[in-house]
Amino acid sequence: MRNIKLTLEYDGSGFFGFQKQPGRATLQEAVEKALSSFFDAKVKIAAASGRTDAGVHALEQVVNFKTASTRELRLIQKGLNALLPESVSVRKIEEAPAEFHARYSVKLKTYEYHVWNDPVRSPLFGLRAFHVPGPLDVGRMRRAAGILKGRHDFRSFCDAGSGALADSSRRGTVRTVKRLEVKRQGGLITLTVEADGFLYHMVRNIAGVLIAAGRGRLALKKIRDILNARDRRAAPQGAPARGLVLARVRY
Amino acid sequence: MRNIKLTLEYDGSGFFGFQKQPGRATLQEAVEKALSSFFDAKVKIAAASGRTDAGVHALEQVVNFKTASTRELRLIQKGLNALLPESVSVRKIEEAPAEFHARYSVKLKTYEYHVWNDPVRSPLFGLRAFHVPGPLDVGRMRRAAGILKGRHDFRSFCDAGSGALADSSRRGTVRTVKRLEVKRQGGLITLTVEADGFLYHMVRNIAGVLIAAGRGRLALKKIRDILNARDRRAAPQGAPARGLVLARVRY
Repeated sequence: MRNIKLTLEYDGSGFFGFQKQPGRATLQEAVEKALSSFFDAKVKIAAASGRTDAGVHALEQVVNFKTASTRELRLIQKGLNALLPESVSVRKIEEAPAEFHARYSVKLKTYEYHVWNDPVRSPLFGLRAFHVPGPLDVGRMRRAAGILKGRHDFRSFCDAGSGALADSSRRGTVRTVKRLEVKRQGGLITLTVEADGFLYHMVRNIAGVLIAAGRGRLALKKIRDILNARDRRAAPQGAPARGLVLARVRY
Repeated sequence: MRNIKLTLEYDGSGFFGFQKQPGRATLQEAVEKALSSFFDAKVKIAAASGRTDAGVHALEQVVNFKTASTRELRLIQKGLNALLPESVSVRKIEEAPAEFHARYSVKLKTYEYHVWNDPVRSPLFGLRAFHVPGPLDVGRMRRAAGILKGRHDFRSFCDAGSGALADSSRRGTVRTVKRLEVKRQGGLITLTVEADGFLYHMVRNIAGVLIAAGRGRLALKKIRDILNARDRRAAPQGAPARGLVLARVRY
């Protein structure tokens, strides 16, 4: 059996998240349908981030599947792109070693969170961003990011939800955030979060804290208290899904 | 009466172009409806580019209207943004001199045309771009642009259509293209066209010529023949509306 790795790009706004759900359009269903139709046999995939929410986008989501087919990679990619909806595409296709698993082999994942920060909404640049009309102090957001960066127990940043408990009980709630950057280009603020793993809604909850800090609604010295509380109720509301993009997965 | 100038940004993909048409969603209808509802009186607008096609976007479309209302500009802007659909916003609002007319006072307009040039479509970056999967030689596109730049009779770049003849018979078909640039950033190619006026579909037809040149399907020496022919049939097919953005209007 060959083990094939696909790198997908998608606009998540028309999907109810990644994971299959009966009677709803999901990314897993769309990709497995295209694969099964191409190979004329039932194909199942594993994904780097298999539990992303409705509305979350991906610049690089990685999945893998097994097949006995001997078709050329280039032809598989072409065929899948013809079968997939416009909002999903296979950007890269590679042979992977037998032991490769898109989820369990992940070393690092990078998410971006986009904020449109201008009094007026932007139909062109704000389409995949959370609109914050009031002023945001990027300097304060960077100082807040400096506090959250590093190895911490992120339990206060983990929402309750399907799979959340199972995953956190298996691995605990300690994660290492290797990179947490805040950049502004005109009205668009991009938060980049890179970590060895993410708890349920962790990026959206980190974005919520940085935005609250940037608005001046959260004192920087409170951020360490939020981490220490190890309680979701200690942190502000998470930011909405539409600003979130899975940007990169490293193995 | 006050004369008020609005700068609009919109995603044109959900509209049948700018100009009112019975029974269809158009930008003119959406904006006049919001204005009439805000002022509780029938309001009509004039637009810098009032005849753009279905699917064309704007970063800066300018319109003006007259009103006897004494309300503050800031409040008018806020009210309109609350009444307009998500895909349209009033980015700027200003008082204009009585003689200002959004269409007849235009000095320069700038359009951008976006091409996604990669074998695989991009659901995130290619959303508002024309997908050209085969290779494009940007150097050749720039040389083609150098030939089209300047003051020429652009009749070969003017499609037949409503208003096209009326406008060209009034002003003729000579226009001055002051800027015609080709930039590449990864898979995204942006053509920037600035001129003192545009014939019907002129930017899309210029984009069609530059793309044909970039593909190697059109010899550079043929471009002067196309201009000299003063006949639409001499030029290649125009590029589709989805890649076109009205970027700036100067008065």
